[in-house]
Amino acid sequence: MSSIQRARSFWGWGFADRFPDDDARRAIGAHVGALLGCTPELRAPPSLDAVKMGPPRAAVPADIAAFATQGREERARHAYGRSYRDVARGFAGDFATAPDVVAIPRDEAELARVLAACEKEALAAVPYGGGTSVVGGVEAEISGALRGVVSIDMRAMGKVLEVDAVSRAARIQAGALGPSLEKELAAHAMTLRHYPQSFEFSTLGGWIATRAGGHFATLYTHIDDLVESVRMVTPRGLFATRRLPASGAGPSPERLVLGSEGILGVVTEAWVRVRPRPKWRSSASVTFDDFFAGARAARAVAQSGLHPSNCRLLDGLEATLNGVPLDAPPEADGVRSGVLLLGFESADHPVREPLGRALALALAEGGRCPKGPRHKEEEARGGDDTSEAWRQAFLEAPYLQSTLVSLGVIADTFETACTWDGFEALHAAVAAAVKGAMPGGRGVLTCRFSHVYPDGPAPYFTFVVPGKAGEEIERWWAIKRAASDALSAGGATITHHHAVGRTHRPWYDRERPDLFAEALRAAKRAMDPQGILNPGVLLDPDATGCS
Amino acid sequence: MSSIQRARSFWGWGFADRFPDDDARRAIGAHVGALLGCTPELRAPPSLDAVKMGPPRAAVPADIAAFATQGREERARHAYGRSYRDVARGFAGDFATAPDVVAIPRDEAELARVLAACEKEALAAVPYGGGTSVVGGVEAEISGALRGVVSIDMRAMGKVLEVDAVSRAARIQAGALGPSLEKELAAHAMTLRHYPQSFEFSTLGGWIATRAGGHFATLYTHIDDLVESVRMVTPRGLFATRRLPASGAGPSPERLVLGSEGILGVVTEAWVRVRPRPKWRSSASVTFDDFFAGARAARAVAQSGLHPSNCRLLDGLEATLNGVPLDAPPEADGVRSGVLLLGFESADHPVREPLGRALALALAEGGRCPKGPRHKEEEARGGDDTSEAWRQAFLEAPYLQSTLVSLGVIADTFETACTWDGFEALHAAVAAAVKGAMPGGRGVLTCRFSHVYPDGPAPYFTFVVPGKAGEEIERWWAIKRAASDALSAGGATITHHHAVGRTHRPWYDRERPDLFAEALRAAKRAMDPQGILNPGVLLDPDATGCS
Repeated sequence: MSSIQRARSFWGWGFADRFPDDDARRAIGAHVGALLGCTPELRAPPSLDAVKMGPPRAAVPADIAAFATQGREERARHAYGRSYRDVARGFAGDFATAPDVVAIPRDEAELARVLAACEKEALAAVPYGGGTSVVGGVEAEISGALRGVVSIDMRAMGKVLEVDAVSRAARIQAGALGPSLEKELAAHAMTLRHYPQSFEFSTLGGWIATRAGGHFATLYTHIDDLVESVRMVTPRGLFATRRLPASGAGPSPERLVLGSEGILGVVTEAWVRVRPRPKWRSSASVTFDDFFAGARAARAVAQSGLHPSNCRLLDGLEATLNGVPLDAPPEADGVRSGVLLLGFESADHPVREPLGRALALALAEGGRCPKGPRHKEEEARGGDDTSEAWRQAFLEAPYLQSTLVSLGVIADTFETACTWDGFEALHAAVAAAVKGAMPGGRGVLTCRFSHVYPDGPAPYFTFVVPGKAGEEIERWWAIKRAASDALSAGGATITHHHAVGRTHRPWYDRERPDLFAEALRAAKRAMDPQGILNPGVLLDPDATGCS
Repeated sequence: MSSIQRARSFWGWGFADRFPDDDARRAIGAHVGALLGCTPELRAPPSLDAVKMGPPRAAVPADIAAFATQGREERARHAYGRSYRDVARGFAGDFATAPDVVAIPRDEAELARVLAACEKEALAAVPYGGGTSVVGGVEAEISGALRGVVSIDMRAMGKVLEVDAVSRAARIQAGALGPSLEKELAAHAMTLRHYPQSFEFSTLGGWIATRAGGHFATLYTHIDDLVESVRMVTPRGLFATRRLPASGAGPSPERLVLGSEGILGVVTEAWVRVRPRPKWRSSASVTFDDFFAGARAARAVAQSGLHPSNCRLLDGLEATLNGVPLDAPPEADGVRSGVLLLGFESADHPVREPLGRALALALAEGGRCPKGPRHKEEEARGGDDTSEAWRQAFLEAPYLQSTLVSLGVIADTFETACTWDGFEALHAAVAAAVKGAMPGGRGVLTCRFSHVYPDGPAPYFTFVVPGKAGEEIERWWAIKRAASDALSAGGATITHHHAVGRTHRPWYDRERPDLFAEALRAAKRAMDPQGILNPGVLLDPDATGCS
């Protein structure tokens, strides 16, 4: 549980002690400056004592006083997620939108009391897991009759309650952070093996509410695929589904909860599908002279029925920035080279043969694999993936983003999914839109596939551009808007696994069927008749009848 | 398209010419009589001219007269699905609940006109695909303000509209029957490979509305997993989702349509994921002295990550009745022996290795495989699975049920899913309940797994008991109730892939969260404000505000 005690940054990603010192920041600034053709400036990080935050707009409701606070630090720490915009505002010391109350219920009964108090006092109720939302998912805007905001932090409900080794399932409380639940599962020789980039600082409940994407590049790509049953407390009572491996009884009730982003209720626990730690691993890196040849290779593997655990394609620039070796220097635009990372894993059997077949498919598209495949056999308890370069860079990336904010550099990612037939055109449209929105055309855009499906990839884009003091958020919005417009116009989704929150609302509203929005609004009215839950997420704040 | 022109039975399963002649029926009767200890009687099949059916309660609305009829034969043919109760009533010539009008819209505009006419004239609108529902899904009860029933037959919208070979997806109209869509896909060297038992006589739209289960024993078990996007016409307009391989943007809109059983709208088309026909196949039959040892073997395979296309466990009696060879005679109660049918298939690579590993897992649980594994490599276009004994029996079973009805014998199936830790207790409880409800204790009950998951199996039960003239439906209900009560009490689902319809309502109502029912009711109100669509399915007929 050291991850809970070690101090978290109140404005940036992760642990406070991971923020680099000035020398290290200077080195990073020089590196990024060379890439962007600008001179990043070393800005001073904020102090918690000096942040701007108004007094609470509402008092702590008496009925929840035993487990709620209006402490300045707790309010600041619950003000934001960790989007670029959040970190930039946090770094600037702007905590104007901090919640008025932070409640930390210890069980479902206390959680129900929080919701009842919010209804009684006309307060917005914002579920808070690890606070890693990158889409404004934990920052409530209030309007209408609502008088203030209660952030509901689920950290006191974070245990593994039960493990069914026969069915390979575990009952876990929603507030469990990734490392904590994995540690508890390891005692049963099991693992959930769901590793979103936010793994260290995000919770099972947050993953379920936002349909988080995880470790597996194919098949079990979202937490959705690992949820056996779910419990959610709503203002109208408990929504609890039966433990079932599958059912055909009406529309899936779990699927209404998955992706509901806290607008219907607060997820309290779930039975999730677990597995033994993998023992056999086979992997290979395949390089291409053309990113799109790499994409065709990824498609061939995705359509082969081989089901790799890793099938991540990086363009040349993405590979370079992430320390993944290419066998030729990448071109500036990134798409003249690519690396396909292939991996198979199993707790049951060697995976040399499927890796061999996937490699053959990749080589048939013009790939090269000078180092050949690697095979590892490990004790079931030992070893993990973190030693690999891409994975290390993957976990470092959010820290780097926070550091770049402190240097006045704008860096962010966005992601989508589309069908294979439309990918090349979508990539071109996104690149044109993002580059067109870069100030003075300066900046870099990279692309990788985070997951692949038989019918299409999930492309993940990163952009880095120079900021200008005081205009960073405006510049960021310009790029975000251009990228989102391009995704939407290209028929792709506004998010494959980052969720909708408040940031993606305009494009989500174009994407989902209008009648689905009406159905969701009606469902919300049934469970949250006063419209207290996470107003502004997925639906307009006035989505219910009363506000 | 011969399957459309060949005459269908108006009361029983499938093609009329498949109903056996009296000699064949006598032979079947003698066989079943020996099994049950009774003497089945040869009853005379009904004549369409003589069936009982009242005059229509409502006239054909003028606006849909060009594509609607009140013809006696069409009304009779749309009266029922093909549950035991349906076939028994049909055989008895009882068509009292026939719809008043049969509409056959040719496009979405005509379909919208049907729904508008139903709203205007206060008629129930019952979507009708292939009419193979075994849960009363196409037989409307009307109450409240509704004056009559329009059956909406989707047969005129049955084409494959588009194939995207790059993304391996096809746009197919909802009224397409299995053989027809497979024939059209074969011209593109593709297949959907979704084979429910009703395959010849059911439609894509019906599969989507009822979350049909198909060919694959693991991974892609339901049509849900093959749907990329969907279009549905509702009384409030079109509900159309975007073609996406995956998305994390809010709760999945497709998942609200999947399993909605015609209460929200009428599915008109979908993009579905297709694939090339398999070229490599490896299979093996493993016999066990104990059905539950076979279940442990199935569990080991389901949890291995090998993803077999076939992993069907039959108990000894089920194997015998389906012509699957056992290496020892089965005991009367079935559970002292079992056969596990393992199969792997691929269009991309040989599957000897995974079959070998699955076989090793099965042998480790005490299985025997005297014949060893079989491996086939075929041209992509040639061959299919129908030569195998179990598959042939699988497709014959509904015909046999109709024949047994004509002999006064009650035969039916029910199915569920549960977690592995609860399977043995559930099996015991179901067996005790069903045997307790059998008249005089006479009858047989068999069990197989239709699909398996890492966290549990989908057990599928068949019962055959003697009937008594005039009391068959009562006897059937007694067993159905006992079985359903046992499933429900055991924490299992009331249906893994047969749907809810009207028959499963009492147990569905216990299973789904009450708040989910409220959400569904609210969603229905948003899309079907007058409550015309399939009243009584999933929700009470008075689920909307106005009726």
